[in-house]
Amino acid sequence: MRALVGVLCALLLLLGLPDRAAAEDSYELWLRYRPLPAAARAGVPGAVAVDPAERDARVLAARDELFRAFAAMSGGMGGGGEVVLGTPATSARVRALRLDLGDLGDEGYLVRRVMTGGRPVTVVAANGGAGVLYGAFALIRRLQLGRPVEERSAPKVRLRVLNHWDNLDRSVERGYAGQSIWDWWRLPGHKDPRYVDYARANASLGINGTILNNVNAKADSLTAPYLAKAAAVADVLRPYGMKVYLSARFSAPIELGGLETADPLDPSVQAWWRAKADEIYRVIPDFGGFLVKANSEGQPGPRDYGRSHADGANMLAEALRPHGGAVMWRAFVYQETDPEDRAKQAYTEFKPQDGRFAPNVLVQVKNGPIDFQPREPFHPLFGAMPRTPLMLEFQITKEYLGFATHLVYLGELFAETLRSDTYARGPGSTVSRVVDGSLDGHRLTGMAGVANIGSDRDWTGSTFDQANWYAFGRLAWDPDASARTVAAEWAGLTFTTDPAFARPVADLMMASRQAMVDYMTPLGLAHLMGTGHHHGPAPWVSDLARPEWNPAYYHRADARGIGFDRTSKGSNAVGQYAGPAARRFARPETTGEDHLLWFHHLPWDHRMPGGATLWETLVRRYDRGVAAVAGFRARWAGLRPFVDAERWSKTADLLKVQEEEARWWRDASVAYWRSLNGRALPPGSPEPAHPLEYYKALRFPYAPGQAH
Amino acid sequence: MRALVGVLCALLLLLGLPDRAAAEDSYELWLRYRPLPAAARAGVPGAVAVDPAERDARVLAARDELFRAFAAMSGGMGGGGEVVLGTPATSARVRALRLDLGDLGDEGYLVRRVMTGGRPVTVVAANGGAGVLYGAFALIRRLQLGRPVEERSAPKVRLRVLNHWDNLDRSVERGYAGQSIWDWWRLPGHKDPRYVDYARANASLGINGTILNNVNAKADSLTAPYLAKAAAVADVLRPYGMKVYLSARFSAPIELGGLETADPLDPSVQAWWRAKADEIYRVIPDFGGFLVKANSEGQPGPRDYGRSHADGANMLAEALRPHGGAVMWRAFVYQETDPEDRAKQAYTEFKPQDGRFAPNVLVQVKNGPIDFQPREPFHPLFGAMPRTPLMLEFQITKEYLGFATHLVYLGELFAETLRSDTYARGPGSTVSRVVDGSLDGHRLTGMAGVANIGSDRDWTGSTFDQANWYAFGRLAWDPDASARTVAAEWAGLTFTTDPAFARPVADLMMASRQAMVDYMTPLGLAHLMGTGHHHGPAPWVSDLARPEWNPAYYHRADARGIGFDRTSKGSNAVGQYAGPAARRFARPETTGEDHLLWFHHLPWDHRMPGGATLWETLVRRYDRGVAAVAGFRARWAGLRPFVDAERWSKTADLLKVQEEEARWWRDASVAYWRSLNGRALPPGSPEPAHPLEYYKALRFPYAPGQAH
Repeated sequence: MRALVGVLCALLLLLGLPDRAAAEDSYELWLRYRPLPAAARAGVPGAVAVDPAERDARVLAARDELFRAFAAMSGGMGGGGEVVLGTPATSARVRALRLDLGDLGDEGYLVRRVMTGGRPVTVVAANGGAGVLYGAFALIRRLQLGRPVEERSAPKVRLRVLNHWDNLDRSVERGYAGQSIWDWWRLPGHKDPRYVDYARANASLGINGTILNNVNAKADSLTAPYLAKAAAVADVLRPYGMKVYLSARFSAPIELGGLETADPLDPSVQAWWRAKADEIYRVIPDFGGFLVKANSEGQPGPRDYGRSHADGANMLAEALRPHGGAVMWRAFVYQETDPEDRAKQAYTEFKPQDGRFAPNVLVQVKNGPIDFQPREPFHPLFGAMPRTPLMLEFQITKEYLGFATHLVYLGELFAETLRSDTYARGPGSTVSRVVDGSLDGHRLTGMAGVANIGSDRDWTGSTFDQANWYAFGRLAWDPDASARTVAAEWAGLTFTTDPAFARPVADLMMASRQAMVDYMTPLGLAHLMGTGHHHGPAPWVSDLARPEWNPAYYHRADARGIGFDRTSKGSNAVGQYAGPAARRFARPETTGEDHLLWFHHLPWDHRMPGGATLWETLVRRYDRGVAAVAGFRARWAGLRPFVDAERWSKTADLLKVQEEEARWWRDASVAYWRSLNGRALPPGSPEPAHPLEYYKALRFPYAPGQAH
Repeated sequence: MRALVGVLCALLLLLGLPDRAAAEDSYELWLRYRPLPAAARAGVPGAVAVDPAERDARVLAARDELFRAFAAMSGGMGGGGEVVLGTPATSARVRALRLDLGDLGDEGYLVRRVMTGGRPVTVVAANGGAGVLYGAFALIRRLQLGRPVEERSAPKVRLRVLNHWDNLDRSVERGYAGQSIWDWWRLPGHKDPRYVDYARANASLGINGTILNNVNAKADSLTAPYLAKAAAVADVLRPYGMKVYLSARFSAPIELGGLETADPLDPSVQAWWRAKADEIYRVIPDFGGFLVKANSEGQPGPRDYGRSHADGANMLAEALRPHGGAVMWRAFVYQETDPEDRAKQAYTEFKPQDGRFAPNVLVQVKNGPIDFQPREPFHPLFGAMPRTPLMLEFQITKEYLGFATHLVYLGELFAETLRSDTYARGPGSTVSRVVDGSLDGHRLTGMAGVANIGSDRDWTGSTFDQANWYAFGRLAWDPDASARTVAAEWAGLTFTTDPAFARPVADLMMASRQAMVDYMTPLGLAHLMGTGHHHGPAPWVSDLARPEWNPAYYHRADARGIGFDRTSKGSNAVGQYAGPAARRFARPETTGEDHLLWFHHLPWDHRMPGGATLWETLVRRYDRGVAAVAGFRARWAGLRPFVDAERWSKTADLLKVQEEEARWWRDASVAYWRSLNGRALPPGSPEPAHPLEYYKALRFPYAPGQAH
């Protein structure tokens, strides 16, 4: 026996078990293939079959992924029969089964157990290679989670993409997980093997595109050297069903082409973009298209020439059209010269252009009308542009939500937006039905997530931030999926399916977003973060050049009250919503606590439904948020037996920081509001740890995620 | 048998062999513990013993490292007796052996095989915990390399430190391996486990200190929040014998203290620094001291107040003295207002101050008089300041040497400097004897290396750049060590000791530096790199604001000739060297090819020793450099069987880029020189691939390593 152990150890070592490399450092994400419980191992298939003539790289990638996963999950004990993989078009065995794949489209899949030749076989079938790949990942996931393997699924949204706000110098705007994973300097000469793992992770969620560079774009990304680099990335991603897109700088015809204008109606400008598109497709034949931030926060755009956003988008769409590319045109525009409520400006600008966009243009709209706050009402454009495909933009990276330090599960935030009812075509006109095209009959649909991915070993800066990437992908596939189900699924894949772990962790995740709202921006407050970096509280800031950059612009607090009056007596932003929604938001009583101060300016003594004053309730919410994080810490401490030391410790470290920062948010905010209203704290609510001046003096010049 | 294999696989998988994490990604550096050849395994000790009362963290770290290494190297077959570890002061077993440790100092060690109680025992003994730790790593290294384990060694240099040019925003000036490994944002709340591996790697080389932040320092690094972060790092490094130092911004008393001056003779300034030192030592009791870049390239310093460098250094030294700290004061100064040859200015400034520095000050001098070029003569200050400890500064990161892309082994460059004879006290007055203090009788000695370490998984941007970190550490321990021996040792530890691999790789490494000199800056040319980023050739640049920033300043080429006349007829930089060296450099015939154009301006038709003209020889050198890199590629292709796929491929990718860039250097340089001298290329030497204007038009705005 001792000799046997020796042999085993020797073998282990021969296989090169490295030191720290073998630690659980979260690199594997949710593709953490481990031996299943003994009883389940026999159910792991022992063989994978594709047609010998199969040439679709996605089907071959699916086969390789199944090999890898089965070998690891079966612990060498797999015997659960064979998996047959393919499309009716290329696999005779799949064709022979005469499966009903009619409603699965290009990317849907069917996983089914069938008997062929008297033997049980698991079939992963689809109409195209991407579907086969997604089906393979679904099969793996179901095995990992101990669920029955049969599944029939097709994506409800067509373009499911990440937006990387990654710069060419490898910095990442609003990135909190190291540098860009795109090592532009070494590309195309060297392709980091990590690109493959990035593609695997995305394919496992059905994410089928990625915009490689920042929406605040440099024209250089469209030069030949950088197109060669992008092409090298595209070559790696293609077998995983992912297309590459680029953010395009609208003034590139001037900067690169030497033209005197970028006017979208100028024929020389149009010709320049057509030639550029042709050049791109020569090196990236399946290039996805352009993402454009125009006339927003200093970016150039068609308005510089008195043209409309539709004029600009349509010019690019025309250049891409012969190649099948799409334009994703962002609606995130607001003008420093426009005195209108910032929350209203995108609607005001875009709504009149509904119907004017070319068929291969999507207008990309952030989930809320301001900018990725801990909580916002849904954007009023949803439902308001029925003749235009509206692409929903979520921010996965937590610019305003504690960076990668705070544990905040965004699946809950995403789902809240998606299930919001716009009432555009009566009750049930949810944002999800706008986005999936079913409300207005669009076939070109999309959902974008601003990536939280970086060069950090754990990809996202913390293990729990991986859940936000995961949730985005799952909800982009199915906008009606349950955030809680997705959370539990992620926890099971990433740690353990033991319900004694996965259940409390899912509870914690689901509670985490409200906790943050409570300790940062309760009761519908928003945009109170530190200037520029958005780290920590700064509700007192009111001296920035542009009015709508100031927290004071958003909270409008004074000695008498707090909140932004967006009713008809104020900015009338409520008027941008459809009837029932507008009526709900018009009165404090029906608005509800979540958006109360977003839509209403109220006296501190305003009576809340429970009878407490607004001020008392506000302080109680801060206290509740801090207490919730303390509770998360305690819960995580109790889960130590389920998690390896490295991942447990890092999460515990970050939760400790989060609790400190939650207290800081609460103390600084309470101290500031009190400096305005002069009121006492409710009984039992502790005094802030420091005087207000202490919080005002804090500076964070080296906070991550700031543009250079 | 099949069942056994199944069990084995199951066990492997239970141990959680990850996917890509298990790939050979160079993370382990030279601490790549693998099973030894079968015959050698029995010689691996099976037990490690320290005194039960041992409390020295360094001895305990040594024990843990031996456990880890023996377990891996023995493949479970170890039986080579016991290792006893400790100092006579704390280990009764070591004391009983009455070993002669007299000449080993605090950090030296003895590894010896002895018989105790009739059984063979390997003893790792030292006078202090650091020595025990270094001895343990030496024992591991000797076992890895298959050498007899007995060794007696003590460092010749006392302060063996890395200089991190790492900024507080995590960018790294002249860094080509990702971000800073110091994750300031998450410190002190979270300590990346990677810091431990950093400490292990350094301890394995005997590196005993690290300067955490850029010499272009921000005062913020001296604030309480950042001192807490530095203290957290110090806590991790301490068990590995490493002290933490900080780069100090000279004007911090103004920026942080609100004083109106940083004049080193001002009592309030002195008091501020004393209080700051006291504050630092409260949180980092073994703080090493300050590194200072003063009055250089825009940094503030004592000259701003009409005080000398000695005045500035001594003020800081006085603040650190009660705590045992040291000041490392850089001699890298040159003035834009000074018309003197830049190569002379440091000597002119510092030589007169010899003898004026406090006892705990070292003056840190770069290896050459300009700035880390592919080749420079040794700095004339070496040997010229006998009453001052001169610390040698090498640059491990390859700012001017092709970044992390080009394979250039710097051990050869370091050794060339160290063995250079200053003749300061007659023949044999080598730089190594200045640095190790033996020439002038200094006990406080030091060597610094500007780190090439970053957040990249492979630490240094390429596997072969790890060799430069390794070589720096080994040569800091023993400045007389052979660069070739060190190269072969590194290759053996990092890849395989198979001589069919290690020998050709060591040959390649030893040839690599001359190859780079040939294709970049042959025959003593220097500083011809692109402006700012220092990537690629730009010998034509002559329009920068400061004369000494221009390549044209250095090569002085025109229609008639090329080179910088530093003889008595020119700048007389040769006059800064001691007699025999000065006489050698005074005439082209005796200077030798390596430094020919560094010291002499010569006509293109100057006859070289072999009879060819200077122009012909210059072109031949470029051609030789390009051919050498092509040879490296071919050699590496032949070594594929010895190396895992991932490390082999990345090196092959980079060698391909290096060959392209070598050709670019050669073509652009030749095209430019020919535009001046109008000469034909020697027979058989190919035409440049592009006209000169093509090379002049190349731009690299996103090159890594540039300060923000």
